[in-house]
Amino acid sequence: MISWNNLDTLASFQELSKKEKVSLKDVMSGQPGADRVKKYQMPMAAGMTYVYAPKSIDDAILDGLKKLSDEAQLLDKFEALYNGEVINTGEKRLVLHHLTRSQLGDDVMKDGVNKREFYLAQQKKIADFANDVHSGKITNAAGEKFTTVVQIGIGGSDLGPRAMYLALENWAKQTGNFNMEARFISNVDPDDAAAVLAGIDVAHSLFILVSKSGTTLETLTNESFVKDALKNAGLDASKHMVAVTSETSPLATSSDYLAAFFMDDYIGGRFSSTSAVGGAILSLAYTPEVFARFLNGAAEEDKLATNKDITKNPALLDALIGVYERNVLGYPATAVLPYSQALSRFPAHLQQADMESNGKSVNRFGQPVSYPTGPVLFGEPGTNGQHSFYQLLHQGTDIVPLQFIGFKESQLGVDVNIQGSTSQKKLCANVAAQIMAFACGKDNEDNNKKFAGNRPSSIIIGKQLTPESLGALLAHFEDKIMFQGFLWNVNSFDQEGVQLGKVLAKKVLAHETDGALKEFSDMFEI
Amino acid sequence: MISWNNLDTLASFQELSKKEKVSLKDVMSGQPGADRVKKYQMPMAAGMTYVYAPKSIDDAILDGLKKLSDEAQLLDKFEALYNGEVINTGEKRLVLHHLTRSQLGDDVMKDGVNKREFYLAQQKKIADFANDVHSGKITNAAGEKFTTVVQIGIGGSDLGPRAMYLALENWAKQTGNFNMEARFISNVDPDDAAAVLAGIDVAHSLFILVSKSGTTLETLTNESFVKDALKNAGLDASKHMVAVTSETSPLATSSDYLAAFFMDDYIGGRFSSTSAVGGAILSLAYTPEVFARFLNGAAEEDKLATNKDITKNPALLDALIGVYERNVLGYPATAVLPYSQALSRFPAHLQQADMESNGKSVNRFGQPVSYPTGPVLFGEPGTNGQHSFYQLLHQGTDIVPLQFIGFKESQLGVDVNIQGSTSQKKLCANVAAQIMAFACGKDNEDNNKKFAGNRPSSIIIGKQLTPESLGALLAHFEDKIMFQGFLWNVNSFDQEGVQLGKVLAKKVLAHETDGALKEFSDMFEI
Repeated sequence: MISWNNLDTLASFQELSKKEKVSLKDVMSGQPGADRVKKYQMPMAAGMTYVYAPKSIDDAILDGLKKLSDEAQLLDKFEALYNGEVINTGEKRLVLHHLTRSQLGDDVMKDGVNKREFYLAQQKKIADFANDVHSGKITNAAGEKFTTVVQIGIGGSDLGPRAMYLALENWAKQTGNFNMEARFISNVDPDDAAAVLAGIDVAHSLFILVSKSGTTLETLTNESFVKDALKNAGLDASKHMVAVTSETSPLATSSDYLAAFFMDDYIGGRFSSTSAVGGAILSLAYTPEVFARFLNGAAEEDKLATNKDITKNPALLDALIGVYERNVLGYPATAVLPYSQALSRFPAHLQQADMESNGKSVNRFGQPVSYPTGPVLFGEPGTNGQHSFYQLLHQGTDIVPLQFIGFKESQLGVDVNIQGSTSQKKLCANVAAQIMAFACGKDNEDNNKKFAGNRPSSIIIGKQLTPESLGALLAHFEDKIMFQGFLWNVNSFDQEGVQLGKVLAKKVLAHETDGALKEFSDMFEI
Repeated sequence: MISWNNLDTLASFQELSKKEKVSLKDVMSGQPGADRVKKYQMPMAAGMTYVYAPKSIDDAILDGLKKLSDEAQLLDKFEALYNGEVINTGEKRLVLHHLTRSQLGDDVMKDGVNKREFYLAQQKKIADFANDVHSGKITNAAGEKFTTVVQIGIGGSDLGPRAMYLALENWAKQTGNFNMEARFISNVDPDDAAAVLAGIDVAHSLFILVSKSGTTLETLTNESFVKDALKNAGLDASKHMVAVTSETSPLATSSDYLAAFFMDDYIGGRFSSTSAVGGAILSLAYTPEVFARFLNGAAEEDKLATNKDITKNPALLDALIGVYERNVLGYPATAVLPYSQALSRFPAHLQQADMESNGKSVNRFGQPVSYPTGPVLFGEPGTNGQHSFYQLLHQGTDIVPLQFIGFKESQLGVDVNIQGSTSQKKLCANVAAQIMAFACGKDNEDNNKKFAGNRPSSIIIGKQLTPESLGALLAHFEDKIMFQGFLWNVNSFDQEGVQLGKVLAKKVLAHETDGALKEFSDMFEI
């Protein structure tokens, strides 16, 4: 029997809070530090390794985290989720994004439909469509192949797919898996759509309109933008657009689209990269096989997330340590730092996935919680960040826990050797060096040159960023966010905080305002 | 006589801390809210307006901030800075980026050189060079015009210039000021350079190598990458590269470059967008006149920053309110939210400018401070952010002060009208709505749908994002950061926190490691 309790009511949390704190600087130094790195690491999917030695933990704290995991029934809750319980209680919805990876748990029947089969059927439908586009069976009206694919979507319909596309672009080009250039239109700022449309050949472009409800303001506005551009070019818009939406949306049966691919209410936007939302663009830009490999990486990582041993379950331990840092050590923010230019927008995707899921002040039952929940999350790729905000991370007054990601090999394989090493080696040397600089710091008689250390991090190390390792990375963080939501006892799968702004914006556009809002409307001459 | 004191030693700060707090929700509602918006705003340069009504302030707190400004001698310190005192005490350097805008204060003589004239001479040299490239007087070896300009630099040599280029790209295309496509290579990740080089026509590309010292690891490595690519294409690299560096760097007199443009030790990387570092690429991609207009906008804003009345000095008041939020109200982070896709990388630039300047734990004299200094800064453009991390901003457990930026008009002027309004109006309506949603919130019997409000913001409103308004925005935040550094009594102009990582990375590459660092090196197979 699962029970949902606030973090601060758990005996194991109280016990954990009282445990002696670890001085990272001390435990990471010398030979004990080396032993610790060997000990505090575990395999992830796709051959990657999660190293948590540079976190402020020891065996006693791990034991406390294990007890916390048990008392909070994290694995039981995960099992309930993927087997189809109504975990999104606010919206009374199932949470089924794991089923898009298709390999976990029981079959889930909902409204007379086997949801696993439903998601698989959409994946198959997308694959067939993409193959037909690539082979030239589906073309523009002039019988010419489409060369560009443009995703029109915002939030989860944009950030995840865009980050995944960018992550694999070089890899796909290098391995002969690249079929179409992808572009993205998201913002309601008219300059976003106008600039993208000015930079592509619309006659050879296929547009994917992504909106679960079919009512997202930005997306419908940008669809209208695209239709105008197609019309102005003398083209039939319905021959250039496909829709990714729910079966109940007005888009689903419209004749305005070449095809429609479906998701449903059980896939939150920020968890939709492995659904048709990510599937259409990744299958078209690359190949359906690349997308399938990406799903396999995610599925493999999901399986690890069911392991009852916290030292063999990367997402679970990552979640537990994060809550320890947030609620016991009191750190207010967290940074994601991939040493991979291809992951340039991965932090922006995680920023949504994490902050929108767990940036909540009430528990699952609508009662205010009296402890901090989701932190601010930000990040940029290394080594760039080293020349930017790392100053604050090293010597600022707040401690910000860090999540590094690094790969042994580049994607394109082109490199130069200067000063005795390649760029790739320099990249890897930098991330290794940063971990130690943050953990151990360095004394100096000049305080301005002193590094206090004791700044915790963990690192995920892979061989190369491939579809499998990308899928595993994505699933790792999705599952981590889910476990943290369970710990904080919040509903990670709704987003009521986005509603009020929408309501007020409609009032502004309808000129139904007064007070300060009218003043601002007037200043903008609306 | 200027004296440098810690924030918590100032009587005015103690007094400010004790003042009654403002309930934003109450003061922003109804007609008093409208009156407040009219009252708590002030002009900025380039016709923009800074509105601080949605901040948690009132006349009493403003009076306290005024006293704080006076006691901390903020304007005296600014005057000392632009008139050439050694404000960067750690590195014993002047801080002269304001002189690149050339219109403030006395002439500054240093090492027998009039620094204002020096910066102006570089600007003129760049303008002549850019005009010669545009006219075809300077071409590639085949006598063909250069069509692309690629900046090779990292940190301040990348983030600022890149953000400024992106901010004006649409505007320049729309107004006939666009001459060359720009690209940027920054990361030591070999895939960064390889991907950029694969996407351009190197035979018609001009490369700008930017490194003040001429020793930045990433930049020299990427230069080598570019030279290989030019050589492989049968081209003479020295006919395709210019350098932006200091006169004492090895690059300054090298025959490897078509030309060299100079900056110096008195311009910090993160404050170098208005120096040759930003000037070369903006003058080449656009025109020297566009760059001059950008400088004029910055100069106009700098002048406002000298105003002794805090209600007529946007940067000063913004800085004071930020310190009030950080050190009295205790907010740990801040977000910059431009409602303009063109400003997509402006937050990343400010992230460096702010966090690298004020992420310090010791004061100017090397003594540890006992109060929080620079906060974590992050941001993404609206409306995109609304569909991402705004959930946490509205309903999370931490309050994050917000800096909105919005413009009445788009840059490209292409728009669609659906549901009775244009995209641009929808964009503006959304930012107006968000300010009020954050400030006033909304009650609901369902706590999950309740918005607590009391989340402070300010907004900068302009007519359009142009060279002038961009320059003014940049100067506003540069000056704000400077004033906050004065308040926290830190040296905002050094960055000792970036050194340790560099030292350790060299050790890794030289295989001079032991302990945990050796373990990580081995995991990366270095």
